[in-house]
Amino acid sequence: MAEAAPCGSAAEARVRAWAAGHAARGRRVALVTSGGTRVALEARAVRFLENFSSGRRGAGSAERLVAAGYAVCFLHRARSAFPWARSLPQHGAALLDAFRLTPGDTPAVAADPAALPALLPALRDYHRATEEGVLLPIEFTALEEYLELLRAAARALAPFGSSVMFYLAAAVSDFYIPTSEMPEHKIQSSEGPLQITLKMVPKMLSPLVKEWAPEAFVISFKLETDPLILIDKSRQALEKYHHQVVVANILESRRTSVIIVTKDSQTPLSLSDEEIAQGMEIEEKIVNYLQGQHTLFIEKKV
Amino acid sequence: MAEAAPCGSAAEARVRAWAAGHAARGRRVALVTSGGTRVALEARAVRFLENFSSGRRGAGSAERLVAAGYAVCFLHRARSAFPWARSLPQHGAALLDAFRLTPGDTPAVAADPAALPALLPALRDYHRATEEGVLLPIEFTALEEYLELLRAAARALAPFGSSVMFYLAAAVSDFYIPTSEMPEHKIQSSEGPLQITLKMVPKMLSPLVKEWAPEAFVISFKLETDPLILIDKSRQALEKYHHQVVVANILESRRTSVIIVTKDSQTPLSLSDEEIAQGMEIEEKIVNYLQGQHTLFIEKKV
Repeated sequence: MAEAAPCGSAAEARVRAWAAGHAARGRRVALVTSGGTRVALEARAVRFLENFSSGRRGAGSAERLVAAGYAVCFLHRARSAFPWARSLPQHGAALLDAFRLTPGDTPAVAADPAALPALLPALRDYHRATEEGVLLPIEFTALEEYLELLRAAARALAPFGSSVMFYLAAAVSDFYIPTSEMPEHKIQSSEGPLQITLKMVPKMLSPLVKEWAPEAFVISFKLETDPLILIDKSRQALEKYHHQVVVANILESRRTSVIIVTKDSQTPLSLSDEEIAQGMEIEEKIVNYLQGQHTLFIEKKV
Repeated sequence: MAEAAPCGSAAEARVRAWAAGHAARGRRVALVTSGGTRVALEARAVRFLENFSSGRRGAGSAERLVAAGYAVCFLHRARSAFPWARSLPQHGAALLDAFRLTPGDTPAVAADPAALPALLPALRDYHRATEEGVLLPIEFTALEEYLELLRAAARALAPFGSSVMFYLAAAVSDFYIPTSEMPEHKIQSSEGPLQITLKMVPKMLSPLVKEWAPEAFVISFKLETDPLILIDKSRQALEKYHHQVVVANILESRRTSVIIVTKDSQTPLSLSDEEIAQGMEIEEKIVNYLQGQHTLFIEKKV
């Protein structure tokens, strides 16, 4: 694979020391993965294959998990949605318009008053989480980085057994081009139509559940566009990888409804029109439900 | 092509009215395109082909063109770099850390003092440009949107003849999948390795120069990874499309050096180590040079 991967062993040591501190104080730990991976089509890459993901599911869930008392390692695609920063203007004119030059002798800049109702609670929650050290953000961009960091984090968290939750919401590419089959230079358009052959990325759930962190509570996500195959694909994943939960969702309705699938249950969660009007997010229901499942999982183990 | 395109005629009317106001006051107009296009691989798309581009070249050039007296229509990829917002923290923890809760009875939020040296001049320039209406931002995401908006803007600007500069810095995909050949649903990884065949996107430079805005001053950009073919490819483009300038650059060195190629000249521009240390950007030299070329172009025409 093409892009340089970061040093996994440094990440492993960092995550383990952070988690040990929280575990010593009786806090549960969650690894949340979020955002899409990037796959290069050329060795000196100009073109990439991207999996669609804003990272909203992961970032919103990380906020809720912190509120529920978890320490969260947030393994996310660089520049994707970030906990508590989601509701702020992040780009272009909207970002510039959020700041105001304040009149007076000393030049200063204040937040636009219109932005305050969203900004104040977000900043307070973010600062509290930062002071308590309950959010450990780690970034990836390339698929290779994601794979190496996931393995490092999983190994780092394994010693904390069933109290660890893996919440695998990242949109990971199923396909990549091996470096040996990749063109060195930018593909030339003058050579006519482009034929690309992509190989399958090995599924990380298998070694994660079998080898890296066999005692942990593992949740994977399944996003499909065809509702007819969603539940079958989710059950197949549970049978194949032997983990605990699949959160199943359909592209068009993923912001308002999901189905929580376990070996012997199938629980739809959705927002009512009233809840949507109140600004409630589906991640609140997902995390509430999974926190309960995690408790049951820990108790059965003990 | 798969994604819905916006209404080009509304954009055309908007750009023409805006440009007419500036042209009446003797101001030159530039259309700057910036950022990469997105190409869907599925009808209900989860996977996309992306051209790499942060949009820094286009955003930095738009700032310089405004400073040089141009009114700039900034046709950019949503969430790519934006004039004057480039130096601000835009993501995640860095964005949250740029704001501070100010103590006192009334909750308020101020910018972090450490951010002020970059923030103050950027906000001043942005507010000045906004008041004068010299920046007209228009967003695209999908390749289809880009193509339709480029045509609309080109037609809108054609009446202003040689005083219009097209500064085509966007990274436009050379390839796409026709809707008729696209799978309806998410491609299933269980079906094995993935084979994709992409068709060529028609080059827009040809109708732009021949039909849409034949009197305008047109600059295209050529980004390659192989220095051996760069100048030849640039000359071929000038011969094929009959426009005025190609800004040629190599992926690795694009932030510090370019070659301005015209029918009968080849002018390297680069930053010295001292200029790099001072924080100077190559876009300043590119825009200075091209502004001069544009003046010569207008005078020869008159």
